[in-house]
Amino acid sequence: MATTEKDKPKKQLIREAAARLFRDKGYSATSMRDLADAVHLRASSLYNHISSKEEILKDICFENAYRFLATMEEVEQMDASATQKVMALLHLHIRTATEDFTSVTAFNDEWRHLSEPDLSAFKALRKNYEGRFQAIIEAGIRAGEFHSVEPAIALHTLFSSVRWLYDWYKPGKKITAEDLEEQMCRLLMKGMTKQ
Amino acid sequence: MATTEKDKPKKQLIREAAARLFRDKGYSATSMRDLADAVHLRASSLYNHISSKEEILKDICFENAYRFLATMEEVEQMDASATQKVMALLHLHIRTATEDFTSVTAFNDEWRHLSEPDLSAFKALRKNYEGRFQAIIEAGIRAGEFHSVEPAIALHTLFSSVRWLYDWYKPGKKITAEDLEEQMCRLLMKGMTKQ
Repeated sequence: MATTEKDKPKKQLIREAAARLFRDKGYSATSMRDLADAVHLRASSLYNHISSKEEILKDICFENAYRFLATMEEVEQMDASATQKVMALLHLHIRTATEDFTSVTAFNDEWRHLSEPDLSAFKALRKNYEGRFQAIIEAGIRAGEFHSVEPAIALHTLFSSVRWLYDWYKPGKKITAEDLEEQMCRLLMKGMTKQ
Repeated sequence: MATTEKDKPKKQLIREAAARLFRDKGYSATSMRDLADAVHLRASSLYNHISSKEEILKDICFENAYRFLATMEEVEQMDASATQKVMALLHLHIRTATEDFTSVTAFNDEWRHLSEPDLSAFKALRKNYEGRFQAIIEAGIRAGEFHSVEPAIALHTLFSSVRWLYDWYKPGKKITAEDLEEQMCRLLMKGMTKQ
């Protein structure tokens, strides 16, 4: 069953509100006051949950990075074809984009506002994930499962292709999350055209 | 022949620098002073070219919108299959992303900072373009050229899939702009897998 807004812990609601403000107003222009208003808390109560917007940004970025790396670890252990591995990772990207709005912060541009040494640490995790995803694509090309394509182009096209879902998908849309995942996976794996 | 940085008129260089600042610092946090520094002009000289950052944002958004709508007009008149029409539009999206950095402003999130009535006008142009693109996809599904897919999902997946190019593609990359366009078009039309 899908998680409803009410089931989410306060900390997650604060993070999602912050992600939305960072996206709408920009990270620099977002104040703790804006955030308190967005989650209907007094500023003083907000500080019981988090100490600064820098802390929220850091939490959001690293939680998302670790979640993606944990799934990568599982996928690499699978006794499966490159096609099945890429599909498992695509499902993760799509599900994350529809279920957790904070991922917009980590995977669009807001992570650029991290300060050092967090910025370099986050970039290294991102690079690690991208390198391992690209290795799976390369294995699929070598095995003759995938069309011959520059692996970096395939990688970034796949990553980027799900980035509209944050804004578009809402529980209650006439399409279910499962159908959406299936249609997008098919589109990316099999393409638009029938031949 | 590709346009080099030197060939671009001053106004376009200012727009591209503004688009880069909006993306990196956020629109709200970008000042006219930042922009003057980025294009190596005194603030007083910058005002000879543009009057405010609002004006640049508006110029960037509407120029991009009109360029896309002009191509849509041409594509609709083509005596061609839905596949050829979608490919012509994909080429436009890919070429724009690699050749004109200002498109990042209009097609990612910065347009949200337009003030009314420009915001509504821009949204209407965007919606018009999206509706016409979606009608071409629907025609392709009816004609049996495309897999049966929710047209809105195909539309947004295609749009989104090119959004990484702004950051990645630079003249001088080992892949040419032509090869990149061809590989991405093939990937999106034919998919990752061979069967």
